[in-house]
Amino acid sequence: MKLCTYREGSALRLGLVRGDEVVDVAASAAQLRISVPETMEAVIAEYTHVRRALEAIEEKGVPAGKLSDLRLAPPVTRPQKILCVGLNYRKHAEESKMPIPSSPVYFAKFANSLAAHGDEIAIPEVAREVDYEVELVAVIGRRCRNVSEEEALGAVFGYAIGNDLSARDLQMRASQWLYGKAIDGFAPLGPYIATADEVGDPQRLGLRLYVNGELRQNSSTADMIFSVAQVIADLSRIMTLEPGDLVYTGTPEGVILGREKKVWLKPGDEMACEIDGLGRLENRLVAG
Amino acid sequence: MKLCTYREGSALRLGLVRGDEVVDVAASAAQLRISVPETMEAVIAEYTHVRRALEAIEEKGVPAGKLSDLRLAPPVTRPQKILCVGLNYRKHAEESKMPIPSSPVYFAKFANSLAAHGDEIAIPEVAREVDYEVELVAVIGRRCRNVSEEEALGAVFGYAIGNDLSARDLQMRASQWLYGKAIDGFAPLGPYIATADEVGDPQRLGLRLYVNGELRQNSSTADMIFSVAQVIADLSRIMTLEPGDLVYTGTPEGVILGREKKVWLKPGDEMACEIDGLGRLENRLVAG
Repeated sequence: MKLCTYREGSALRLGLVRGDEVVDVAASAAQLRISVPETMEAVIAEYTHVRRALEAIEEKGVPAGKLSDLRLAPPVTRPQKILCVGLNYRKHAEESKMPIPSSPVYFAKFANSLAAHGDEIAIPEVAREVDYEVELVAVIGRRCRNVSEEEALGAVFGYAIGNDLSARDLQMRASQWLYGKAIDGFAPLGPYIATADEVGDPQRLGLRLYVNGELRQNSSTADMIFSVAQVIADLSRIMTLEPGDLVYTGTPEGVILGREKKVWLKPGDEMACEIDGLGRLENRLVAG
Repeated sequence: MKLCTYREGSALRLGLVRGDEVVDVAASAAQLRISVPETMEAVIAEYTHVRRALEAIEEKGVPAGKLSDLRLAPPVTRPQKILCVGLNYRKHAEESKMPIPSSPVYFAKFANSLAAHGDEIAIPEVAREVDYEVELVAVIGRRCRNVSEEEALGAVFGYAIGNDLSARDLQMRASQWLYGKAIDGFAPLGPYIATADEVGDPQRLGLRLYVNGELRQNSSTADMIFSVAQVIADLSRIMTLEPGDLVYTGTPEGVILGREKKVWLKPGDEMACEIDGLGRLENRLVAG
């Protein structure tokens, strides 16, 4: 099942993606007299109980329009945490001239960094060296602490595409990366969340990123150093993960930072991220 | 004005601190027929409009009990962001054997790390080297982006005491500190928020930390490398700050990490943090 959040005026609506169209969950539930949650947060919290009802709506529901025509929001808008893993693909660690980490390297973003598919993203005036990073994002589905590696994927509600944008000059300004990472709009997410049962094994997904149509990143989640399950288990040893928390699991090689000639992103550049089964996340940069 | 959040069963209630007692804002408002917000988040968002009404309640309101008898919550429970500044006091940077930073060093915690005055804090099984850090915490009062240093303090609602607990072994496990910082309960905050008008200049406050009654940190916010205003202005150049966001502004010298002989904190240890005008924040460590 693929779920999205879309905007209608200033309201957020829950949608079910069916082929290239989006089913309006609330309108369909009313029409079909089926009781289901009407926000992504509620679906995440109650998925096992409402899955069948949502499947009925997916089959018989009322379309709100084409996915490509709707104005999307980030699938999740107010996560308590956005956790990011750095240097989590072997070849990316090498191109960044960093040692292969022996433990996962974590840093943070916050909800201010979320952006939707189709949103324009403003480069702040102080940022010079803007870079992209296509990433598989795991959306946590249930409250958990101290989960084992074997149980960890059971805590995942679903997956989406993320673009972990960075301003490399600000990221490297100090020992800690936050200032070049936690920028408004620098964590686009979407277009939708595909539920874990639909995605299957998260460690065999191709992922690609294009800039203005040119393929820049092209790898597979099989190349991760620490798997999604290992990362979630590791995080859960120190913190309680909550429904809606997002884990950006790192990016493969091909970022601008790793290139001989570094031509940083600029206003007008169009980024498109793809992950097998998760669709396509497109964003354009604009001047801040 | 000093505002706290306290627990009554599973509910959170807003309190006004009057001497050593706490006035029940909602009950007093009902009795005095004054209309005021009944949550800290709402007070923060509307403070300039509701200040007079709150002052009337402070004067004539109904006490809920003594501050020392109530079961407090963190004054703010669901901040969008918890931003922390590392190495922001000259002598602490020196004791940590780190260079004096030329730009602020930022890292993050999330709401899972909040704890209230009086809460017991569990040391996770994986953590060995637990250390304390008394800090002045600025509570953001209004949505802002690109504020100047001159305007920055105008965006502060108030101040509270924070204890930026760390597991140094986990903090230093990788280049990024998050794993030793974003631990459940490792950002105690409280006991209350004193509004900015009551605190005055945030760069002339004495701050102290005691472990089992022994004075370990004893300095002044005058020793900060980057002032509260500089930090807020700097952050606002890349991100939108929101009401309720917390900025932990760094700790002075005297942490365990900086000592010749490092005796890490252990279950049973009692920490007490004091900042002039902000009261006393006490927490006991327990086994995880």
